[in-house]
Amino acid sequence: MTQNIYHQEQHRIDTLGRSSIEISQTLHTAVSSAGVVSGLCHVFIHHTSASLMICENAASEVRDDLESFFSRLIPDGDPLFSHIDEGADDMPAHIRSVLTQTELSIPVIAGRLALGTWQGVYLWEHRTSPHLRDISMTIHGLGA
Amino acid sequence: MTQNIYHQEQHRIDTLGRSSIEISQTLHTAVSSAGVVSGLCHVFIHHTSASLMICENAASEVRDDLESFFSRLIPDGDPLFSHIDEGADDMPAHIRSVLTQTELSIPVIAGRLALGTWQGVYLWEHRTSPHLRDISMTIHGLGA
Amino acid sequence: MTQNIYHQEQHRIDTLGRSSIEISQTLHTAVSSAGVVSGLCHVFIHHTSASLMICENAASEVRDDLESFFSRLIPDGDPLFSHIDEGADDMPAHIRSVLTQTELSIPVIAGRLALGTWQGVYLWEHRTSPHLRDISMTIHGLGA
Repeated sequence: MTQNIYHQEQHRIDTLGRSSIEISQTLHTAVSSAGVVSGLCHVFIHHTSASLMICENAASEVRDDLESFFSRLIPDGDPLFSHIDEGADDMPAHIRSVLTQTELSIPVIAGRLALGTWQGVYLWEHRTSPHLRDISMTIHGLGA
Repeated sequence: MTQNIYHQEQHRIDTLGRSSIEISQTLHTAVSSAGVVSGLCHVFIHHTSASLMICENAASEVRDDLESFFSRLIPDGDPLFSHIDEGADDMPAHIRSVLTQTELSIPVIAGRLALGTWQGVYLWEHRTSPHLRDISMTIHGLGA
Repeated sequence: MTQNIYHQEQHRIDTLGRSSIEISQTLHTAVSSAGVVSGLCHVFIHHTSASLMICENAASEVRDDLESFFSRLIPDGDPLFSHIDEGADDMPAHIRSVLTQTELSIPVIAGRLALGTWQGVYLWEHRTSPHLRDISMTIHGLGA
């Protein structure tokens, strides 16, 4: 009988302050370890001022422009905000997280993480200073 | 052999009009009932003018500021909108829903809903008047 | 013993340029084929300049207004953008994708895709010219 798998891994990622870090390879490696042939790879970030996104992985200017766009849309130190005791970048970080993703599921097809050719998975740190960020992966599906 | 579980629950939630309501405890309780040790807890809202979000759960000003930010970004009664027959807050409610989440999956690790320390799950009512909102939970994974 | 199912399908969808196309029926049909009674239907788009959304399915002005809102929020040809070699609509298409969804899971309850009465699932093409877009569905859960 085909085996049903739920494989979980936790990883801690060091960020350099506001910017996005590609984590696709971490997911690819976890999918290989899980032994799932058909299923899904779920990733979750346990924070509210950093988030996840799937974004174009070829031209780095795309992520620079995303950073510019979000900085203009949600300015640090906006006088609209009352939650300011953790810094001018804190409330913008929460809003950026709400507007992007805290969790994602990506198909596993024929034993491989089935991202599109131009898709990368990124952890997006929204605070200006470096942080340690915890993510959990759950790869589930049918094994061989 | 380890049992594979898909446990489903439906809940109806009374909202007070535009504001967010924490539903983390509803999810924690459903996870306990499900008996899943390793897996995922999925929650879905069956509406297009209310949504879900994971947000900071300590300082209530964070959610006040989110409300202010979204109200400024998507003004009620904006003359841009042609869909106005259900009220000045209706089209903004649809846009807020599209910009946030209709569904979320959160890992279940060692039998517990693995939210980060500062993460809460919220139902966000975007209409100005109170509504009844239906959510469905699907907790799936391996049992004991 | 109840059968555990992971049913996967790939579909290619022809878009007409910037606009949204309802794909709810494609999901309903896949759920019927899968034979899942209790579980989830996951859909994933393998691109970074087209996305998915759950939106009101009755009044077509809702999606017209969404288009107007996103066009005003993220103007084509904005001088803020440095990634311009693929056209004035390319960077806005990436931002629109990041602000909406690349993947969605919808509950399957009693063998049916459990969308709310007014919910439709849409593929949203963000480029101005027509494209071929690949989606993958994974329907998983317990069978009869």
